[in-house]
Amino acid sequence: MSVDFNALAQQFCSFYYDQFDKDRSQLGNLYSSQIQGARNIIEKLVALGFNKVAHRISTLDAQPASENGDVLVMVTGELLIDEEQNSQRYSQVFHLIPDAGSYYVLNDIFRLNYA
Amino acid sequence: MSVDFNALAQQFCSFYYDQFDKDRSQLGNLYSSQIQGARNIIEKLVALGFNKVAHRISTLDAQPASENGDVLVMVTGELLIDEEQNSQRYSQVFHLIPDAGSYYVLNDIFRLNYA
Repeated sequence: MSVDFNALAQQFCSFYYDQFDKDRSQLGNLYSSQIQGARNIIEKLVALGFNKVAHRISTLDAQPASENGDVLVMVTGELLIDEEQNSQRYSQVFHLIPDAGSYYVLNDIFRLNYA
Repeated sequence: MSVDFNALAQQFCSFYYDQFDKDRSQLGNLYSSQIQGARNIIEKLVALGFNKVAHRISTLDAQPASENGDVLVMVTGELLIDEEQNSQRYSQVFHLIPDAGSYYVLNDIFRLNYA
């Protein structure tokens, strides 16, 4: 595989957080509908108790995660929620699977890092 | 697969951090020697500039990561290094691959979370 997994990871995260911060109800087609149900994931995201959110990436690391072109991405960063002045730190992992020239999200683990 | 991936992830992390905090030079056989070289990884771990370290897990999340029994684990926690009184927060991801009744670490991504 000659895919540049670092570039892919950066593109993905840029797109993902941009879309999340603008309209997270549109993220559904990034998730595999076969696994846990993209619909449930999006319902969960939309139900989050804030109106406005901005993600700032602090670190982004990517590694090839199989011989099939899977890519593992770990992000740490900050969230600014609604009118809050203080950001909240978070960590997130995406497991991206190649599929017909694109990628879908097989795993997504998100945690706020409380001090 | 009827593996309890949550229990596996907890067992793995408990073993891993216990071994790391006692003698990190012995972690080599957890890594696949085929991939990036377990030896390089251990040289890196041993060369870390501290003598004493203690990991405290704050959150641990596990998900199945393939149909073959792969498990993805994200940990956030705190590190106490040498005689430091203030802990440092970290995030870490392990990608575990089943192999002959056990598991090896295919991916390991570690970051300190600076405030």
